[in-house]
Amino acid sequence: MTTFYKIASEINCKATGIDLPIEGIAEPLGSGINETVFIFQKDILKNKNKIGSKAWVISSSLMESELQAYLARTNISYILSKDILDAFAKTLQFLYPEPVLENRRSVHTSAIVDDTAVCSENVQLGPYCTIGAYSRIGKNVTVMANVTIGNYVVIGENTILYPNVSIYDRCVIGRNVVIHSGTVIGSDGFGFYKKDGRYLKIPHVGKIVIEDDVEIGSNCAIDRGTLGETRIKQGTKLDNLIQIAHNVTVGENTLIAAQTGIAGSTAIGDNVTIAGQVGIVGHITIGNNVTIGAQSGVISSIDEGKTVSGYPARDHTESLRKEAYIQKIPEILKILKEKTGE
Amino acid sequence: MTTFYKIASEINCKATGIDLPIEGIAEPLGSGINETVFIFQKDILKNKNKIGSKAWVISSSLMESELQAYLARTNISYILSKDILDAFAKTLQFLYPEPVLENRRSVHTSAIVDDTAVCSENVQLGPYCTIGAYSRIGKNVTVMANVTIGNYVVIGENTILYPNVSIYDRCVIGRNVVIHSGTVIGSDGFGFYKKDGRYLKIPHVGKIVIEDDVEIGSNCAIDRGTLGETRIKQGTKLDNLIQIAHNVTVGENTLIAAQTGIAGSTAIGDNVTIAGQVGIVGHITIGNNVTIGAQSGVISSIDEGKTVSGYPARDHTESLRKEAYIQKIPEILKILKEKTGE
Amino acid sequence: MTTFYKIASEINCKATGIDLPIEGIAEPLGSGINETVFIFQKDILKNKNKIGSKAWVISSSLMESELQAYLARTNISYILSKDILDAFAKTLQFLYPEPVLENRRSVHTSAIVDDTAVCSENVQLGPYCTIGAYSRIGKNVTVMANVTIGNYVVIGENTILYPNVSIYDRCVIGRNVVIHSGTVIGSDGFGFYKKDGRYLKIPHVGKIVIEDDVEIGSNCAIDRGTLGETRIKQGTKLDNLIQIAHNVTVGENTLIAAQTGIAGSTAIGDNVTIAGQVGIVGHITIGNNVTIGAQSGVISSIDEGKTVSGYPARDHTESLRKEAYIQKIPEILKILKEKTGE
Repeated sequence: MTTFYKIASEINCKATGIDLPIEGIAEPLGSGINETVFIFQKDILKNKNKIGSKAWVISSSLMESELQAYLARTNISYILSKDILDAFAKTLQFLYPEPVLENRRSVHTSAIVDDTAVCSENVQLGPYCTIGAYSRIGKNVTVMANVTIGNYVVIGENTILYPNVSIYDRCVIGRNVVIHSGTVIGSDGFGFYKKDGRYLKIPHVGKIVIEDDVEIGSNCAIDRGTLGETRIKQGTKLDNLIQIAHNVTVGENTLIAAQTGIAGSTAIGDNVTIAGQVGIVGHITIGNNVTIGAQSGVISSIDEGKTVSGYPARDHTESLRKEAYIQKIPEILKILKEKTGE
Repeated sequence: MTTFYKIASEINCKATGIDLPIEGIAEPLGSGINETVFIFQKDILKNKNKIGSKAWVISSSLMESELQAYLARTNISYILSKDILDAFAKTLQFLYPEPVLENRRSVHTSAIVDDTAVCSENVQLGPYCTIGAYSRIGKNVTVMANVTIGNYVVIGENTILYPNVSIYDRCVIGRNVVIHSGTVIGSDGFGFYKKDGRYLKIPHVGKIVIEDDVEIGSNCAIDRGTLGETRIKQGTKLDNLIQIAHNVTVGENTLIAAQTGIAGSTAIGDNVTIAGQVGIVGHITIGNNVTIGAQSGVISSIDEGKTVSGYPARDHTESLRKEAYIQKIPEILKILKEKTGE
Repeated sequence: MTTFYKIASEINCKATGIDLPIEGIAEPLGSGINETVFIFQKDILKNKNKIGSKAWVISSSLMESELQAYLARTNISYILSKDILDAFAKTLQFLYPEPVLENRRSVHTSAIVDDTAVCSENVQLGPYCTIGAYSRIGKNVTVMANVTIGNYVVIGENTILYPNVSIYDRCVIGRNVVIHSGTVIGSDGFGFYKKDGRYLKIPHVGKIVIEDDVEIGSNCAIDRGTLGETRIKQGTKLDNLIQIAHNVTVGENTLIAAQTGIAGSTAIGDNVTIAGQVGIVGHITIGNNVTIGAQSGVISSIDEGKTVSGYPARDHTESLRKEAYIQKIPEILKILKEKTGE
């Protein structure tokens, strides 16, 4: 078991008060004496007497004399952190290391690797996964149970594919990528044309590139390019159930929340934040540092740095104003009635 | 083959008219003489002469003298039911029992069960399913083909997992639970923080609890808690393609329709009804017995018993009024034009 | 390697200029001399001097004297096509034929086919797929890795099932159907009724019929009928992450874009176009040749040939007018202020 001072050392902070054995991290309300808690925001301090823990990690921005007095009076040990989220993440990693089931870091006998595929050192292949012809799997890659990897696929080192992921032929996946269960990478884009009253398929011969450090949630669908490629750039994070259509580009360090859909050939910039259930039409450009509110419908390009919301998505303050306008209609009707006698 | 009177006995109702051999249940329009039909609503009776069946089960609330005369005149046997949905469900179970393919109620030789996992009696394991270390599977559980169950998972008795379901480590699933194909339970929540311009991951060490009698549709994504847990309480039913984020609680006997998404740490009450494609932001509370209309965007907590709709979701009557206001603008413009001459 | 004139011959068009060896198809901007490019729309011609290719296929509607002069002056060989999309699709098929990995057109030894199932000639079964009892698989069908096919399923000839598809019992799938990864066909509809405060399940004994020439994207969820059937008619194309509820009928040659959801028992006509993230309530009828804009919420039936958008979906021009009305409120307020002095 670890102690509160060992945690302080792990996150490069100073602890105050007595050292305590620590059993784990808990939510503040309902925590036990020997569980450490993280105080991110002021709100929770309104109920500070309901926090059972005697070992607090506190965002240093929240510290003031009254709190300090309270901690001293109640014998609570504490750590002040200037970057509480980082401290939280590091403590989680320290207290809950990924379980290493040693005998499972191996290639399961039921994994099917084509004779022409190449796996680098220390690859972990779970039961019933398959790796197609001419694919190359980097070192330390983890391919879990029932994952299907097509032909001519490239996967960079340290990447993790959770169970039941499907990777179509010719996808390129970078290093340190995480793809959660059920996600499909490289299915054909939705491209058909009508001839003699029937839809015929446009072959999709393009590819997908998922760059380094990307994380993709569960049950997403990311289509390959028609020609060219669909690309998700370095460090971008996707939540669950997201649709990325053919030939879309998503920039670096962008966040996309669950159930958002991006139509074909649209280019999303770097450091963009897209909330949940957003729809973005095809063939437009979203600039860097744009923020898009939840459930927005984006039907035209957005300049760098803008915050938009609503349908059709427009400047967020304008969207709020639109709502306020509608609320004024009863008042207008009342004035009109008074003035016109109608 | 069964008869109409046997069905009456099965559903504890009295049949009137001659007994008939029954071949199955059919939709009223297009039904054959020996198919039984269920009359749920008045509408269908407008076309009663197009119902081929001579064996009707009728909601007793619909019976009146004219209908009775029609049934007698046309020699239609009938059953009156005070709970027609229950009668329908019970008759379906009676006429279409789950097919028991005896030799398939077994552990397929290709099922991989870790040496440290425990399966209770009468567990059915389909081909190519895998059960991880230290997991415990209750009696009469059905795990279909290509299901992947992680380590330290607990599954209660009689639960059914359809093909290609993924259960991550440390999930707890109750008794009589049904999870349809492609659904992912326990993937990491969407939790990142920015440091030096890059997103870093907050480890997700929490778990998921799916309580007894829950049913979850196809291709849903239900994330584990960061700390603590994500919990879906007893008797709640989820449709397909639903997103449940980390640390969400869904109460008892709640219905959530397809493609709805609930963001992190939100608490949904008991007996709530949420229609399709609804989005609910994080960190709010939805009271018991709330009803939320389709495609609503819920951005703040909702008190017990309310019915809300629209974006932002507000009292449903207010949402309707808002629409009516907008429709009045042309009239306002007309009056203004007349009165001001502009 | 092929040449530009061989492509012309393949698509039944006449080439002008010198013949060139062709290495592939590329997007116009960034193309190399020996890559052929397709000019679909006028826009790209504004940057025609940035097109590296010397082998253009041009929509004949775009040709005029200035362009002709430019092509001659710069020694660009060209093909005029009256049906540029068809020319594009055919050239893709010609230049990028489906890779035939001969030794993989076979039944993998790990494929599990029930003794009572029947596979016709030339069926390809990937690793770890399973085919249940009494199922019948037509000739030339491709079942990829980890696909699970239930009991009493029928699949027509030439159909392709991508990895991790789940087909429940008793589904009927036509000829030349394509189903992408993660899609679930035949899960139970969302049908429950409340009794004594708890939801009880209505058994779903109906089936699903997917007719010939249908394509379904990744991670869709298509539920079986309660009674009767859910049916997707000939030639219809579905994008990714689509929800089709129990007893829905989708007509012929209809397009449905990603993340759209259709609730129970609704009937969609032929030649309908539904954009992305649309929601359609249950028990309504959408006529033939209807077009529904992205993110619309359709709450009542729509007559043949209409174009609708918005929430609630109404005639598209009316939706636009509604937006224009709202924009007029500030002006109304201004007039009122001036005229009334308030």
